[in-house]
Amino acid sequence: MRIAQIAPLYESTPPQFYGGTERVVSYLTEEFVKQGHDVTLFASGDSITNAKLIKGSPKALRLDIGCIDPLAHHFVMLQKVFEMADQFDVLHFHIDYLHFPFSIRSDYCHITTLHGRLDLPDLQPLYSTFDKVPVVSISNHQRKPLLQANWVDTVYHGIPHDLYSLNSGEGHYLAFLGRVSPEKRLDKAIEIAKAVGMRLKIAAKIDKVDIEYFNHHIRHMLDHPLIEFIGEIGETEKKIFLGNAAALLFPIDWPEPFGMVMIEAMANGTPIIAFNKGSVPEIIDHGVTGFIVSNEQEAIEAVYNLPLIDRAECRRVFEHRFGADVMARNYIKVYERVAEDHCTQKNRARKTSIKEII
Amino acid sequence: MRIAQIAPLYESTPPQFYGGTERVVSYLTEEFVKQGHDVTLFASGDSITNAKLIKGSPKALRLDIGCIDPLAHHFVMLQKVFEMADQFDVLHFHIDYLHFPFSIRSDYCHITTLHGRLDLPDLQPLYSTFDKVPVVSISNHQRKPLLQANWVDTVYHGIPHDLYSLNSGEGHYLAFLGRVSPEKRLDKAIEIAKAVGMRLKIAAKIDKVDIEYFNHHIRHMLDHPLIEFIGEIGETEKKIFLGNAAALLFPIDWPEPFGMVMIEAMANGTPIIAFNKGSVPEIIDHGVTGFIVSNEQEAIEAVYNLPLIDRAECRRVFEHRFGADVMARNYIKVYERVAEDHCTQKNRARKTSIKEII
Repeated sequence: MRIAQIAPLYESTPPQFYGGTERVVSYLTEEFVKQGHDVTLFASGDSITNAKLIKGSPKALRLDIGCIDPLAHHFVMLQKVFEMADQFDVLHFHIDYLHFPFSIRSDYCHITTLHGRLDLPDLQPLYSTFDKVPVVSISNHQRKPLLQANWVDTVYHGIPHDLYSLNSGEGHYLAFLGRVSPEKRLDKAIEIAKAVGMRLKIAAKIDKVDIEYFNHHIRHMLDHPLIEFIGEIGETEKKIFLGNAAALLFPIDWPEPFGMVMIEAMANGTPIIAFNKGSVPEIIDHGVTGFIVSNEQEAIEAVYNLPLIDRAECRRVFEHRFGADVMARNYIKVYERVAEDHCTQKNRARKTSIKEII
Repeated sequence: MRIAQIAPLYESTPPQFYGGTERVVSYLTEEFVKQGHDVTLFASGDSITNAKLIKGSPKALRLDIGCIDPLAHHFVMLQKVFEMADQFDVLHFHIDYLHFPFSIRSDYCHITTLHGRLDLPDLQPLYSTFDKVPVVSISNHQRKPLLQANWVDTVYHGIPHDLYSLNSGEGHYLAFLGRVSPEKRLDKAIEIAKAVGMRLKIAAKIDKVDIEYFNHHIRHMLDHPLIEFIGEIGETEKKIFLGNAAALLFPIDWPEPFGMVMIEAMANGTPIIAFNKGSVPEIIDHGVTGFIVSNEQEAIEAVYNLPLIDRAECRRVFEHRFGADVMARNYIKVYERVAEDHCTQKNRARKTSIKEII
């Protein structure tokens, strides 16, 4: 298929640092190229891809200190997308609703993956208005606040098989990976580790907005022989960090739309102990790739039950459910379905339009 | 004409508090109604107008504490605009570039007034991309950073004749009205007043972002018998505040795109002493409605020369150049011109399209 991927411009695709959406778009794009599709990637100019790259901005906007108005650059990119739209069988947008008022009035075939949380009140009138725009969720749970949207399918994120491999977990520590923010509940992870007397290694970034939270609620908890705060880590370190962990702790307290770190752990053969919120029950097979728990007491019991988990099976489940190849194949099915619907509608519209003119 | 005015949703139209763009849109809309046009106003639901009101959002977004994503509401409004587009002879947008990628691909007649400063680097690629979208400047100087845009005309803001009237200026004080921010240079105004030994009344709001500036650079200057800090004032107080002033001090240090307060002063018969930046030389007739100066020394001399200014003439110039009626007539000329161009293009496109289909 002739596929256009339209990525956000905040980070490069793939991102140099943090940037969940851009990372997934990169995995998907490269997998499509590998599968022989004709792929064009609209992304920041410092992106690296085997697809044809159309530069939406010279470089990633978050690294551009002169950038005050990121929307302006996204509109420039959209214009490039629209000018080339008839060259593609499908346009796959990853930039939220930024193209909705355009795409709804255009005659190209398009689909949008919504990557973020959708429980903002502002989105209610938006999706009631644009309830014809076909959208894809990254978990079924993500849809809940916006039942009025035109949900076409759920496609889970995937990562390339060779990025991680089955690892031993012989570091005998629990791992926490992500942001230090109230909804990620690092405090709970620390309490669980202390309760079971096991080491906890924390690889986490602290965003500006979370510095006060870190200073007031977390810092004093770190001064303990079992707790080790590593800070932010890169891709290479992640492999060792996750692969050597006995389990990943994921004690979230928010409607996580997907949670990439869970499948990254799985790809290393590392089981997850996760609180039952958001996408968690869709990602984790309870008792197979980890344990879904409701509170700290259950999490503590889960740590004791870790020997029941087969790490090789975690890796197998990852390959079967969350490989980039699986994600790509699932999206192709969505594209074909949307293209068919679109074709039917277009033919109908064309006939009407000829009648009107003649 | 059948005219659509599309206002920002941040404030109501007219705004309850500060909100320059919404205020001008209101003046223009009500004047069009008065002149007998068929006017539809797209604005926040708490707007008050004699035109037909289409609610873009239930209420002004800046007063809605639940609003995190104002763009979503503007997109909802845009969708309403597009659905009704064929009911208007012209669509007049006041929401910056938010509609550009839509309008450039649509066949309605539209014009956009740019209300803000245009020297952001982010806007360069935007206006190079959308260099066909017809735009109106609010001063000639405003255009300078964006010569590539499709400038159709400059239309100066206007205010209704009856909002203010010729006043005596018998308060024998100098006035400063606006925000306390570095580029407005309240410090200069204070120095000028002290140097000439004349009272300075300051009616100014302090935005959150300017609190530190106020505390560090302004607060200590206020403790002086000649200086009186009043704080933020409403429309009713403004009339007395400006009308009783001997002159308005406008010692700006930024490319002011228009500067409503200058014509508000003029409408009260109050002359302006303004630094030569941005729109200033286009708004003030030097020696007639005030003095254009380059530094503090010249400003001080200008205060001594105030008796040379005829306040009645200030008011007459206001009525002649900056009444809402003048603004409305100027916009009608712009609409007619844009509509004519648009009509020509549309006919050309229609012929091509029939050829292609048959």
